[in-house]
Amino acid sequence: MSSKQTKFLKALQAFLPVDSLLTGEESLRPYECDGLSAYKQLPLAVALPGNKNEIIRIIKLCQEFKIPVVTRGAGTGLSGGALPLENGLLLNLTRLNKILKINPENRSAVVQPGVRNLAISEAVSDHGLYYAPDPSSQIACSIGGNVAENAGGVHSLKYGLTVHNILKLEIITAEGELLTIGSQALDSPGYDLLALMTGSEGLLGIITEITVKLLPKPERTQVLLVAFDDVANAGKAVSEIISAGIIPAGLELMDSLAIKAAEDFIHAGYPVEATAILLCEVDGNSPEVDDYTKKIHALCLQCGATEIRIAADEKEQKKLWAGRKAAFPAIGRLAPDYYCMDGTIPRHCLPEVLKRISDMAKEYDLPVANVFHAGDGNLHPLILYDANIAGQLEKTEQFGGRILELCVEVGGAITGEHGVGIEKIDQMCVQFKPLELSQFHAIKDAFDEHGLLNPGKAVPTLHRCAELGAMHVHNGQLPHPELERF
Amino acid sequence: MSSKQTKFLKALQAFLPVDSLLTGEESLRPYECDGLSAYKQLPLAVALPGNKNEIIRIIKLCQEFKIPVVTRGAGTGLSGGALPLENGLLLNLTRLNKILKINPENRSAVVQPGVRNLAISEAVSDHGLYYAPDPSSQIACSIGGNVAENAGGVHSLKYGLTVHNILKLEIITAEGELLTIGSQALDSPGYDLLALMTGSEGLLGIITEITVKLLPKPERTQVLLVAFDDVANAGKAVSEIISAGIIPAGLELMDSLAIKAAEDFIHAGYPVEATAILLCEVDGNSPEVDDYTKKIHALCLQCGATEIRIAADEKEQKKLWAGRKAAFPAIGRLAPDYYCMDGTIPRHCLPEVLKRISDMAKEYDLPVANVFHAGDGNLHPLILYDANIAGQLEKTEQFGGRILELCVEVGGAITGEHGVGIEKIDQMCVQFKPLELSQFHAIKDAFDEHGLLNPGKAVPTLHRCAELGAMHVHNGQLPHPELERF
Repeated sequence: MSSKQTKFLKALQAFLPVDSLLTGEESLRPYECDGLSAYKQLPLAVALPGNKNEIIRIIKLCQEFKIPVVTRGAGTGLSGGALPLENGLLLNLTRLNKILKINPENRSAVVQPGVRNLAISEAVSDHGLYYAPDPSSQIACSIGGNVAENAGGVHSLKYGLTVHNILKLEIITAEGELLTIGSQALDSPGYDLLALMTGSEGLLGIITEITVKLLPKPERTQVLLVAFDDVANAGKAVSEIISAGIIPAGLELMDSLAIKAAEDFIHAGYPVEATAILLCEVDGNSPEVDDYTKKIHALCLQCGATEIRIAADEKEQKKLWAGRKAAFPAIGRLAPDYYCMDGTIPRHCLPEVLKRISDMAKEYDLPVANVFHAGDGNLHPLILYDANIAGQLEKTEQFGGRILELCVEVGGAITGEHGVGIEKIDQMCVQFKPLELSQFHAIKDAFDEHGLLNPGKAVPTLHRCAELGAMHVHNGQLPHPELERF
Repeated sequence: MSSKQTKFLKALQAFLPVDSLLTGEESLRPYECDGLSAYKQLPLAVALPGNKNEIIRIIKLCQEFKIPVVTRGAGTGLSGGALPLENGLLLNLTRLNKILKINPENRSAVVQPGVRNLAISEAVSDHGLYYAPDPSSQIACSIGGNVAENAGGVHSLKYGLTVHNILKLEIITAEGELLTIGSQALDSPGYDLLALMTGSEGLLGIITEITVKLLPKPERTQVLLVAFDDVANAGKAVSEIISAGIIPAGLELMDSLAIKAAEDFIHAGYPVEATAILLCEVDGNSPEVDDYTKKIHALCLQCGATEIRIAADEKEQKKLWAGRKAAFPAIGRLAPDYYCMDGTIPRHCLPEVLKRISDMAKEYDLPVANVFHAGDGNLHPLILYDANIAGQLEKTEQFGGRILELCVEVGGAITGEHGVGIEKIDQMCVQFKPLELSQFHAIKDAFDEHGLLNPGKAVPTLHRCAELGAMHVHNGQLPHPELERF
């Protein structure tokens, strides 16, 4: 440990309660990774502040000693955004877990970043309200992390991402100052810093308070399971439903391997002989739900559905969803390891992209299961592999990288709802041109002059892209010499 | 004219067609103001480029000669965002008026900035689609300006603002480089520059191409007119409808003065004895529309409605809306001049705020009519005055300023859908703290180092706020001496 680091830790110890600063290897171990466990790193120390003032003092010390900071919530992120830095502090916000205010009249709530996503809906349930974005990890994941990653979920198709469901943020800047952005109004004056901060993966500020929008619980919900003997037909049904002006609350696609795995594990009654199934949820008032259910039924038949099941009651609805919700662990039983990708494509490219992923699976000799948010074109291919077989992890990462590049090729994006973090940082060089990346760096500079907040994540340096060969380097010069500083 | 300016104009003349550069006073006159005609200024020159390459060359020359640029679309903005600068170029984009691509399958279209808002919906109508945001000026206003101002409209309550209805932008930076932001995907990786650019009022870049989202036309529409003898009851009905989980496509409130003015002008059949009316539009599939219509009817009765009229057919719907759409010109007939304010408040404060505006109207002895987007709390008080009476304009501006400060006081914002421009720049000092303003300036620096894009608009300098007394200045020092440079 350098003398600078020793002094920094002493300064923290001077005001933090003894159980709020962890330094021994054993106590640091639980924080070595987030949900992307292929990457592991012990931090210099872990701070567990109990309030805003402690965070401000911590950040001011980080500035003084130029110690980088990685902020972490529940650590359920899947792209390594909360991976610690060897020379950095890990700032854990799980103790800021209070719901500060519920305002049913204005349909909003003010919460601290460590509040679990589902806890918000539970707390406002008596008012007939809920918080819409529902990542699969909603039992565990915290709202601060949801904002940092702009998390989505099964219902994003109808209700939007985190950015569409928050009104206001309080953040602590890299300088340790409190900044309030957004308001209770539909559109705040000034630049839209609220959207800029949402999904910025901890690179622009520390989120300390969030005002979320609440929605009234829908009067009624209906779930349909539709089976197909051809994935292309399932993809076509997705396009037809959306084109007909129907926006289901959720529209999920599972392929053959995923269906079988889920059925083996959960016994949800899925048709295991099907090549693909769609799970479609419609919500709203009662006549609206009836009408859309009928229309979806007819459209799916036209697209060659081999079976359509409409859940008879809430119990059957839950059973149908249970298979989808357990799909990832179910697939996890098929191989020692799996790698969950996350990319987005225009909806009409679904059949083509699924076909090409299947071709690549043969080329790499690694099975792939597909379970994803078909309605918004958000793919989640799961590559099955065995990390104990030499070279398989590397092969899997290469395969995954090619899937993301395919997403960019057809006009989509390298992320859906999981963020870039450390996982997709190289693909950012494919997605963006040097000028676009340098504009990102200029934004970072505007918030964090010394680059202390989560450095090395989300946005690659131009040199990193150049080394990858993703950028044309002429005579040893980057394409825009004036951007050299990034 | 300085020799720098002369050289700059010569350099423009060298490549722009002769009808693409205006310099004589007479040809500059039509550009002296936008929709906020209380402010007028002739620019140094007006450029009317016909394509992107011309814009790039123009902007590079502006950089070379350090000439500021104000970008303008149709000039319908109401906050003076396109007010020219005496020493600046006015860049008029109305010749970039092509719809480049319509993609019905992906429900999107790629358009140039000079395309009129309504022209988009007309062009895609055969596909059963439309573009949702509908500012009152939609016949005339251009989509580039809509993006720059993050325009809303009657239907924003259900369908969102411009930022919720675009996917991708191509911009030319202050350095004259092409930058693409956003994608066809739901959430793009990297910082959310798309939202940052939307509503940035021409301060961060020149928008040259916009990919808009298209929506399927609703199956059916229903319009209700509900009369009240008490404005507070009308406000309560608004809250109750929204609390019941119903999101009407539009929910507009007009007060007594506005009702009478509209009825005199348009003969829409409005109940002139009413103290307030709500115009409520519901859209969706047929059973949904029926169900919501019934529920709204019942809720309004509970809130003390004195009359409820449900339009019998499309003709009557159009008639009911005609009064609302002509309300501004109708009110314009009541006095030589009127000043349209635009602020936002939390919905539940409607009765209180309307009462206090009415008290202020007595204090200033200036009548106020209210016509506004009640559903999203977006107020449009119209102050009636006579600019020919000495002091009335100043009194009106002061009154207007106090209305905006009232919006901030109750937790709302100084803008709804009209932007800040030059009109509300002083109220920005009330809305934001120095640290927040300086963060805005840091963003500006990250895009436009030399401050050439629309300088002096939207975001006030800290010194301007200090001079207004809106900021605590201690011993001649701004509260954050490190922010002195802004």
